[in-house]
Amino acid sequence: MTDSLVAQLRSELGDAVVVDDPDILDSHRNDHATFCTAGVPLALVRPSSTSEVQAVLRAASSARVPVVTQGARTGLSGAANAIDGCLLLSTSRLNQILEISAEDQVAVVQPGVVNADLSRAVLDQGLFYPPDPSSWEMSTIGGNIATNAGGLCCVKYGVTSDFVRGLEVVLASGEVVRTGRRSAKGVAGYDLTRLMVGSEGTLGVVTEATLALRPAPEAALTAAATFRSIEDGIAAAFAVMASGLRPSLLEFLDQPTLRAIQDYRDMGLPADAGSMVIAQSDRGPRAAEDVGRIAAICAEHGAVDVAEASDAEESRMLLEARRLVNASLEPLGMTLIDDVAVPRSQLVALLRGVAEIGAKYSVLICCPGHVGDGNMHPTVVFERDDPAAEARALEAFNAVMELGLSLGGTITGEHGIGTLKARMLENELGPVGLELHRRVKAAFDPFNLLNPGKVLL
Amino acid sequence: MTDSLVAQLRSELGDAVVVDDPDILDSHRNDHATFCTAGVPLALVRPSSTSEVQAVLRAASSARVPVVTQGARTGLSGAANAIDGCLLLSTSRLNQILEISAEDQVAVVQPGVVNADLSRAVLDQGLFYPPDPSSWEMSTIGGNIATNAGGLCCVKYGVTSDFVRGLEVVLASGEVVRTGRRSAKGVAGYDLTRLMVGSEGTLGVVTEATLALRPAPEAALTAAATFRSIEDGIAAAFAVMASGLRPSLLEFLDQPTLRAIQDYRDMGLPADAGSMVIAQSDRGPRAAEDVGRIAAICAEHGAVDVAEASDAEESRMLLEARRLVNASLEPLGMTLIDDVAVPRSQLVALLRGVAEIGAKYSVLICCPGHVGDGNMHPTVVFERDDPAAEARALEAFNAVMELGLSLGGTITGEHGIGTLKARMLENELGPVGLELHRRVKAAFDPFNLLNPGKVLL
Repeated sequence: MTDSLVAQLRSELGDAVVVDDPDILDSHRNDHATFCTAGVPLALVRPSSTSEVQAVLRAASSARVPVVTQGARTGLSGAANAIDGCLLLSTSRLNQILEISAEDQVAVVQPGVVNADLSRAVLDQGLFYPPDPSSWEMSTIGGNIATNAGGLCCVKYGVTSDFVRGLEVVLASGEVVRTGRRSAKGVAGYDLTRLMVGSEGTLGVVTEATLALRPAPEAALTAAATFRSIEDGIAAAFAVMASGLRPSLLEFLDQPTLRAIQDYRDMGLPADAGSMVIAQSDRGPRAAEDVGRIAAICAEHGAVDVAEASDAEESRMLLEARRLVNASLEPLGMTLIDDVAVPRSQLVALLRGVAEIGAKYSVLICCPGHVGDGNMHPTVVFERDDPAAEARALEAFNAVMELGLSLGGTITGEHGIGTLKARMLENELGPVGLELHRRVKAAFDPFNLLNPGKVLL
Repeated sequence: MTDSLVAQLRSELGDAVVVDDPDILDSHRNDHATFCTAGVPLALVRPSSTSEVQAVLRAASSARVPVVTQGARTGLSGAANAIDGCLLLSTSRLNQILEISAEDQVAVVQPGVVNADLSRAVLDQGLFYPPDPSSWEMSTIGGNIATNAGGLCCVKYGVTSDFVRGLEVVLASGEVVRTGRRSAKGVAGYDLTRLMVGSEGTLGVVTEATLALRPAPEAALTAAATFRSIEDGIAAAFAVMASGLRPSLLEFLDQPTLRAIQDYRDMGLPADAGSMVIAQSDRGPRAAEDVGRIAAICAEHGAVDVAEASDAEESRMLLEARRLVNASLEPLGMTLIDDVAVPRSQLVALLRGVAEIGAKYSVLICCPGHVGDGNMHPTVVFERDDPAAEARALEAFNAVMELGLSLGGTITGEHGIGTLKARMLENELGPVGLELHRRVKAAFDPFNLLNPGKVLL
């Protein structure tokens, strides 16, 4: 049955579209998540048109073979990992920017377009596609849509879903549906566009997206401040958000993170710094004034050191500490990156609780994050090749999620559920919510063929 | 069966909650839509807690009696109209503002809170709830959520759905589910919050909403410009949107609307004005500069007259023409207000087409609207008590929707489908999309008891 599926797809779509070379399949089994299992796929298909995607899904549905859609596989939760006997549906050849309209401030793209390619193409026309996950140089718009990717600038501009106006989606049945619209507003029917965004490949395959754009931002300037304590840094970040300023970036680094960065490269960070806040304004001629106000707010909240950039190069340097987080943790061991988001009023409790969890499980937990959105990335660092350390790390990782929930937050602010957090999902949604999710999933995919076992177990 | 339902509810919830006085029921049969039929309800229930709503829905489900949820009944599409033999579920006693948090910039409210009451309460704390439908002095947050209400300021701030973080919802079964979250970000599971928003009472009953707030805006200033033609006015509005300025209001009035206003009250509007654009900036000390740039852009695009307000009173006067639209049309006859939204590049084609439709059906169509969002309100004006005129008006009304769709737009930008546009919905969604909507509806409400016949026929 499944062998004949591959033969059927090959005869229908051609050899170039259907790949079953074991080495290539093996290289496509995993996304960037750690500690997530991956199965052995049946084949990899690389359609280059909506009608080819339809053919794949019709055939897979007939054969009851599961389909896992993959973009650039930069996800962090295993959502794009292979399942035994599945078809991997790669969007790599659905990579056309179909239109950029300055008049309507929209772009129409296929899902395999890389975020950075789109961002640069629209910038050439004086436009701006804000969502900027840290993977933006590699990750695709389709993957960003599947995970509802965030990033640094979403504190001002919002996340991926805030920029998706409409989608073309191929359903499990092979039928095509268009959701949403090209116009800025619209309330005809249910918001199936938003339902698709963040559904991690479980409801349909996006084959085209109409994305909202904005006028290009002006030049940005950065300010950075160090504080004695977590409390001072968080209070300063609060005050910035309450001021009416709209920083285009508002990041936080805790003491363990600052130490790791300083050990990795001498940035002159004070050894006793308890936290650091980095903020940016992208309002061009007014950025200097904004950054001055941010610096003053930080000083009022007890900053021991405040730096204001006066040009792009100084701004880059002040952001360097934030950029070095992952590189500086790498030499320290394996990492498990958490992604809790809490109401801002609970951030101090979150950070204190994370430190306690680190102590309890004898692991280092560094806590950088997007403080303006309350979305932190507590990162559990532990020794390589030490099963006991790994077990403690996983317990700490789960304890951080439980803590986030207990503080009125979520287990994932922007990375998604995938397989990594699927067992925790009911803790957040509750049994009624989870059952409702299953019914919605069945409405789209009655035979549970799209990314089964991801998000919903 | 149904008599016993009322008796059961009365015994369970008390006489004050369950009303079956025919005069009161009659006064609750309709929302503000014209030309929408309304049935005769069985009873009106006014629960004041989530558990009372649960009791109503459990009992209604057992008896298979439909439930129509009503806020202030200011909707314009018949979504809140009674159905024969239904329970009307009024949210009027679920009217508590449960919390306003300056730290988290959220409000937690029951659905029956009036928009203006919430807006004023948060402003007292230096905060801002932007959605401002023209009904805001009367309409409720629950109704705003049910219709995903827009308003004037959504060109800058977005619509209701952009401010709904999380919901408590009672399902048709009587079960309670919480969707979304209090934190700014979160991607755990499907976005059921957005699915609920705009679902017009067909998926569940919202009993609590967590709403995002912003810091209070600064003082606003207004500019208004008249143009010889539609084309010049639209081109100026485009240029404002493309400039990087973020007007907090960007309205358009066409020639028939301007004439009706001038006939109603002498505003000194030039008799030959082809269109008017009104814009506002709410950036306090910088509003004067913004308004100056907007005025300059209008002048560059051939404005025959440009006025810049220098204070709040002058701003109010410049907005007066926009405010008088409904009052000035009222003496001219009955009105049918359309609500198409199109990509901005299609606005001139929409306005030209609307004029042709008016000529074809011998009706006056005035076309004011939210030009920044491409959301226009072509308003068909026709003689009272003239069945032939009414029939022509309805044909024109439908032709405007078809035109909007043919231009890549939507039949409703912010008013909703209700019963008024339910027959047109398939034209927008297509048969596959409509069937998917039905399956989603069944996932929430398997016996089709929540507002049946609304949105989905």
